[in-house]
Amino acid sequence: MNLILISPEECVGGRCVLRDARADHLRTVLRVVAGDRFLAGVVDGPIGTATVREVSADAVAFTFAPEREGPPPWYDLVLALTRPRSLRRILFQSATMGVRDLFLVGAEKVEKSYFQMHLLRPEEYRPVLIDGLMQGKSTAMPRVRLIPKLRDLWAALPEVGTRLIADPAPNVGAPALGPGAPIIAIGPDGGWTDAERAAFAAHGFAPVSLGPRPLRTDTAAVALPAVVGHCLHTTGHR
Amino acid sequence: MNLILISPEECVGGRCVLRDARADHLRTVLRVVAGDRFLAGVVDGPIGTATVREVSADAVAFTFAPEREGPPPWYDLVLALTRPRSLRRILFQSATMGVRDLFLVGAEKVEKSYFQMHLLRPEEYRPVLIDGLMQGKSTAMPRVRLIPKLRDLWAALPEVGTRLIADPAPNVGAPALGPGAPIIAIGPDGGWTDAERAAFAAHGFAPVSLGPRPLRTDTAAVALPAVVGHCLHTTGHR
Repeated sequence: MNLILISPEECVGGRCVLRDARADHLRTVLRVVAGDRFLAGVVDGPIGTATVREVSADAVAFTFAPEREGPPPWYDLVLALTRPRSLRRILFQSATMGVRDLFLVGAEKVEKSYFQMHLLRPEEYRPVLIDGLMQGKSTAMPRVRLIPKLRDLWAALPEVGTRLIADPAPNVGAPALGPGAPIIAIGPDGGWTDAERAAFAAHGFAPVSLGPRPLRTDTAAVALPAVVGHCLHTTGHR
Repeated sequence: MNLILISPEECVGGRCVLRDARADHLRTVLRVVAGDRFLAGVVDGPIGTATVREVSADAVAFTFAPEREGPPPWYDLVLALTRPRSLRRILFQSATMGVRDLFLVGAEKVEKSYFQMHLLRPEEYRPVLIDGLMQGKSTAMPRVRLIPKLRDLWAALPEVGTRLIADPAPNVGAPALGPGAPIIAIGPDGGWTDAERAAFAAHGFAPVSLGPRPLRTDTAAVALPAVVGHCLHTTGHR
């Protein structure tokens, strides 16, 4: 945990109290005592310094002084819904990397039963996202949107932002990036169907190749944002 | 499995027989029958077409006609040894992405006991690498090198190849890439110590930033090769 992320409701009158895994981390890994300071942040709010006030067997109490805004999220991810173990990893890693909106979509090669998984309940995925944000020293909570029918995706997408789709075809050049948060689409392990691929093209998604080797969904969901982030950085857009 | 990878010793007199998870995949997922063809490759050898000759309850027999070389591996990875679950994922994903040599090194913030883990035995990690190669339609088996003492790393590295080290510092520009397979170093989750960082610098490793957000080891081990591969591709080096 590179930053301890707290929810506004965990602080009352300037005093914050934690009792869960974050408190365990503070007590047993960072071994804080009263007076110690650590990096903290507020969900969808600032980053700042926490000062420990009291450590007990089951809780850590501290005050928090905000100092700066957290880093802004910078991309949206359209992800063909994958199995729970893979999704858990993608949620964590996407939150770390700075995702803004996470559109979890159905597709021909996505099992419909996946949309019933426990991990899609906010109380299940939110702790995973918080862990990812703490890894990435970030505070902006990604928004998760469930879209079981792909045809409902298009109306849900932001109008601004370069639209990119991972494509195993070789020799598609560097992505041309315009203003706004790029929207990155990653298909199911079995790939999109031709009709789905055509629908993405019709809605302005340009193919981006990650080389001749087909990547598993969870690999592509890290690799393509990393490449796009690097391109934004070197072109001064980020 | 995008390609079925076979070892030379699994083929005798032009006839290959599989009895493990690969045979199960052929029978129950691809549902092959005699006469069907599928994409296959030989470890450290060519890719070609397999033709099914016989399917029984516990085995699939086929002939194999080589057609072309597998894609060449294109980078080396120096990885501070991580816990087994993370390492398993990195082995798979690195094999998929095209790693050549995998140097698993000790460091101040790497638990020494990690070097005792079962997964470091060839019979344990080889199936993981094979799965990763099959995902990436590749045949070149990565070489795993265990280097418990970081000071023994330098003599083991190839002389040619741009040396890069993931660095959480912001604003380090695009990597300048020379000839040869780049050598990419990824630190432990707790980071390298200053002395270790200095040793990497003294041995020619240039820092590359992946942005202001610190990534977990398994995320960085995908993100940095993806960025470097993209840069090699756009500069015509790959």
